[in-house]
Amino acid sequence: MPYGFFGRVLRVNLSAGTTEVLPLDEAWFRAYLGGWGLVAYVLLTEVPADCDPLGPENRLIIAAGLMTGAPLGGAGRNIVGAKSPLTGGFGASEVGGFFGAELRRAGWDGIIVEGQAERPVYLWIRDDQVELRDAAHLWGRPTAEVEEALKAELGDERVRVCQIGPAGERLCLNACVLNDVHHAAGRCGLGAVMGAKKLRAVAVRGTGTLPLANPDVIRKWARWQADLLAAGDPVIKLRYDYGTPGFLPILQASGGLPTRNFREGVFEGAERIDGQHMAATILKGGGTCFACPVRCKRIVETHDEWQVQPAYGGPEYETIAAFGSLCGVDDLPAIAKANELCNAYGLDTISAGATIAWAMECFERGLLTTADTDGIPLNFGNARAVVQMLEKIIQREGFGDILAQGAYRAAQIIGRGTEQYVLQVKKQEVPMHDPRIKFALDLGYATSPTGADHVHNLHDNAFQTPENIAGLRPLGIHRPLRFDDLSPAKVRMARRWITYRTFQNCLGMCIFMSYSIEAQQEIVCALTGWDFSIFEMLEVGERVLAMARVFNARCGLRAADDAPPARFFEPLGNGPLAGSFIPPDAMRTALQTYYQMMGWDPYTGAPLPWKLHELDLGWLPEADA
Amino acid sequence: MPYGFFGRVLRVNLSAGTTEVLPLDEAWFRAYLGGWGLVAYVLLTEVPADCDPLGPENRLIIAAGLMTGAPLGGAGRNIVGAKSPLTGGFGASEVGGFFGAELRRAGWDGIIVEGQAERPVYLWIRDDQVELRDAAHLWGRPTAEVEEALKAELGDERVRVCQIGPAGERLCLNACVLNDVHHAAGRCGLGAVMGAKKLRAVAVRGTGTLPLANPDVIRKWARWQADLLAAGDPVIKLRYDYGTPGFLPILQASGGLPTRNFREGVFEGAERIDGQHMAATILKGGGTCFACPVRCKRIVETHDEWQVQPAYGGPEYETIAAFGSLCGVDDLPAIAKANELCNAYGLDTISAGATIAWAMECFERGLLTTADTDGIPLNFGNARAVVQMLEKIIQREGFGDILAQGAYRAAQIIGRGTEQYVLQVKKQEVPMHDPRIKFALDLGYATSPTGADHVHNLHDNAFQTPENIAGLRPLGIHRPLRFDDLSPAKVRMARRWITYRTFQNCLGMCIFMSYSIEAQQEIVCALTGWDFSIFEMLEVGERVLAMARVFNARCGLRAADDAPPARFFEPLGNGPLAGSFIPPDAMRTALQTYYQMMGWDPYTGAPLPWKLHELDLGWLPEADA
Repeated sequence: MPYGFFGRVLRVNLSAGTTEVLPLDEAWFRAYLGGWGLVAYVLLTEVPADCDPLGPENRLIIAAGLMTGAPLGGAGRNIVGAKSPLTGGFGASEVGGFFGAELRRAGWDGIIVEGQAERPVYLWIRDDQVELRDAAHLWGRPTAEVEEALKAELGDERVRVCQIGPAGERLCLNACVLNDVHHAAGRCGLGAVMGAKKLRAVAVRGTGTLPLANPDVIRKWARWQADLLAAGDPVIKLRYDYGTPGFLPILQASGGLPTRNFREGVFEGAERIDGQHMAATILKGGGTCFACPVRCKRIVETHDEWQVQPAYGGPEYETIAAFGSLCGVDDLPAIAKANELCNAYGLDTISAGATIAWAMECFERGLLTTADTDGIPLNFGNARAVVQMLEKIIQREGFGDILAQGAYRAAQIIGRGTEQYVLQVKKQEVPMHDPRIKFALDLGYATSPTGADHVHNLHDNAFQTPENIAGLRPLGIHRPLRFDDLSPAKVRMARRWITYRTFQNCLGMCIFMSYSIEAQQEIVCALTGWDFSIFEMLEVGERVLAMARVFNARCGLRAADDAPPARFFEPLGNGPLAGSFIPPDAMRTALQTYYQMMGWDPYTGAPLPWKLHELDLGWLPEADA
Repeated sequence: MPYGFFGRVLRVNLSAGTTEVLPLDEAWFRAYLGGWGLVAYVLLTEVPADCDPLGPENRLIIAAGLMTGAPLGGAGRNIVGAKSPLTGGFGASEVGGFFGAELRRAGWDGIIVEGQAERPVYLWIRDDQVELRDAAHLWGRPTAEVEEALKAELGDERVRVCQIGPAGERLCLNACVLNDVHHAAGRCGLGAVMGAKKLRAVAVRGTGTLPLANPDVIRKWARWQADLLAAGDPVIKLRYDYGTPGFLPILQASGGLPTRNFREGVFEGAERIDGQHMAATILKGGGTCFACPVRCKRIVETHDEWQVQPAYGGPEYETIAAFGSLCGVDDLPAIAKANELCNAYGLDTISAGATIAWAMECFERGLLTTADTDGIPLNFGNARAVVQMLEKIIQREGFGDILAQGAYRAAQIIGRGTEQYVLQVKKQEVPMHDPRIKFALDLGYATSPTGADHVHNLHDNAFQTPENIAGLRPLGIHRPLRFDDLSPAKVRMARRWITYRTFQNCLGMCIFMSYSIEAQQEIVCALTGWDFSIFEMLEVGERVLAMARVFNARCGLRAADDAPPARFFEPLGNGPLAGSFIPPDAMRTALQTYYQMMGWDPYTGAPLPWKLHELDLGWLPEADA
């Protein structure tokens, strides 16, 4: 099946039961690349900002990045987007696995799902053939069963499945979308959007080949990544040997392992939940994403009381910290069970764990009692309580029905001062990185269009020496800055890095790859045949970030919603950086400077008209304001 | 004599008669490159903004660009800078020839001249040996004689000389600085600064070699440029065959050949003054700059009444238009004589020609009479009057003494409404390009920190088709825009292009070379060993432009001084674009948008504090405002 590199987007109307092909030209791709770019473009051009995120007018966008499906490590990711039911604004979440590459092999750069099906359906794509099929028999079943059933009924073991679980069906606001059962587009509650549309799954099988302008260059970088691993590069090796949980001891040592709802940064049970301990106990093997030699994914299995099945993979660092240290839990098999439940039922592990950790702090403070929690004693460290409460969230049962709306809404429902212990930005729970060991992260949390997020953010403690800052030179960053610096120089670094990360969200690049900025430029050129520059790289990132901010402004989000979580203004409770806190005045000034450098309006928080024009977004009505 | 690529700057104090070595480290070079970067840096760190440009506190900076002296075409240029006596602000002018390369071979990246000598001196640099010598015997003599005398007295034919002429000695405000007798750093009246310092010349001889990080890449591009010429590339060939005067017919055809003080755009005598006619008549040969195969320089000789000597080269396009069409003169030998006089006595041909053209319009309008002009009938078309008046300017004699201060000041002295016929920005005369055939040029005229300038400016009629815009893709410019577009999209194009041109003024790149933007990036990397990106390229340009604007603000220049010349708001008098004019409202809006996109304060015209921080200029006191 021949198709060009710049392909087509599939539009599916579930209300009408129709599909159509949306062509996008090369100029579109050069301006927006794909991924977040496609999400932002569709939200701005198709989605009424005041629509109900769980209504038919919202769009669910499954977007390949520009590099998704190219035969090299890091290219296995795709993006899921929609107006987020959790934040009420721009929703996007990145996910690995094999689905994105398969979609591209089938000749599609993305899927836009609109409307709402009357009865559960799934979408079956085989190259050009597209079909909506009944999914009544899949509804309510765990994800691994559904994937198996789909492969069987489609008669092809190589079908790749993107789906929600029962939590998405039940519109949990922290429901996720999963590829291949255990790769999650976790954040922003996008599983609820898919659930509201009654679209249980998308199954895809592609028999084409992604045509590349310069396959030799792609092969070169694929080999380079593999060679780096073979040569024992320590960072890559750590990822290979222990996955993301292998980094837990580093966070613990730096005093920034989120512990007991971010009250502390060092967890006494850290050694019992890290990747190294996992490797010595419950690890069954490594998993991977499309074309990636790093194999950072974990597969675990237990035959103890938790009975964790390997089909659901294993917990990432974020998951371990959220259900582990953040809840004061040091029981790795229990954490693995929580991970399994999230993957089987389609819940975001970060939001779910953080919501339970918030409830635990409220419980310890006496703001919640067993009368609220259906009799479950939600004390920190109670692994059984975590798993039980997670099951209740999934079932939307009792107190779980409240927690299924996320920590922010749960606290609003409960009141009693519980609100002050929620760590959230734009109603999305803070992920497992404490900004008190890297102040600029808080700036990124506050200003991310998706709410608190660690992916498109600056972990500025990583840039403390001339050596480790070397990779930032092409962005004009030449001097390391202290972790607690919030001066304009740090804001400048953050602005550039976040812009660059947004570019990567359009490219679909896994941020755990070691490709330099120049290598990524070369990869874009090799994929497309363009003379794409690093200047354009940053511009695409800033452009798409601006689009996300415009959509948020349309949705009523304002500068005031770029509010850093209160806890990080309080001193960190223990560890090497005990007492560290974000100075509120410095953060306020840094936010102002960030707004100025980004060209954002200090009240609406949206890019100013001249900035839209500078980013070649003059076609937006907001540019004429 | 061993020295590194990142060398040293020579500081010369003429008051004290001392010299010292100013080391600059690699980080400095990566931030500012050289050229304009060095000029801006020295002005901001050393020159009191309120100083008399012709006093001892001003600095004369002779700066190599980063690439100056590298063995490839386009690398023969250096920059001369100071607080300009013409504009009262940031003064910088670019110049070709061989002097800059020789300076670098001697191990110097630049010379900072401060103080004022009591008696005329010249500076003699032979590698590390630096000496101030008496120049009483050179004072008052034409440039070719001085160069010959210096070579004889220094006993080395290979000495390269940068000097002023008698016009600079006499502090004419449009005096220039000349390399090798006939390459002029013409604009901003910098010859007067050198004259005020009583520094007649700098003679240099270097025996070193500029060490290059990757000489193969430099050789590749040197060969590429030569091959392009050999292969008959039409643009390069036009430059080779006819020099810059070869482009005169193109401007005539487009209706933008400045004629009779910019009243018209088509000159009936164009065919008698163009490069093609020159080649058929007075051309003696081609000249060139260091390492350049294009050989665009002209050498002319006449044995008619004008007796033009070949030692002074031949007129460039700017010179021909200024003394020719702008004065209504179609006598090429007379124009060549005017050129010879300017080079022999050290006067900027553009400013001198434009000043005479202004006087001619006033004469025709009856605002000036022969009673003012020492009896010379200054009617348009009077070639003899042009040469006579030029001689008077050089001698600062009679009416010439008034014109020696430039058109703006002359009109202020004379009054009677003559002011309205001056075409100037920041008191510097407009060069030979009519913005009514390329509207964005007017934006560049208005906002250039040096006053009206055609070099660091957007000639946007060159970007009218998808083909000729292809080279701008790495700057994120993908769509051609009409010549008369002043929309934000055009402002965006101008902002990027002008920023890019400013980078070239730091690099020391001749803008007549055909290297792509990517090639220039590669050249910077090959010179230095850096991983320099196109993003940094643009940032360096914007940074140095911002520095120039900061210096201007210190000097009291304001946004109001970014005033487009009134004439271009009037309809063009003839030709294919007869009636074309810049709409004042559109220009006002475009200027506002340009300021916003540049991050400039709408009143002071200086970069806002956040912009200084964004450009890593937090060290400037203005960043704390």
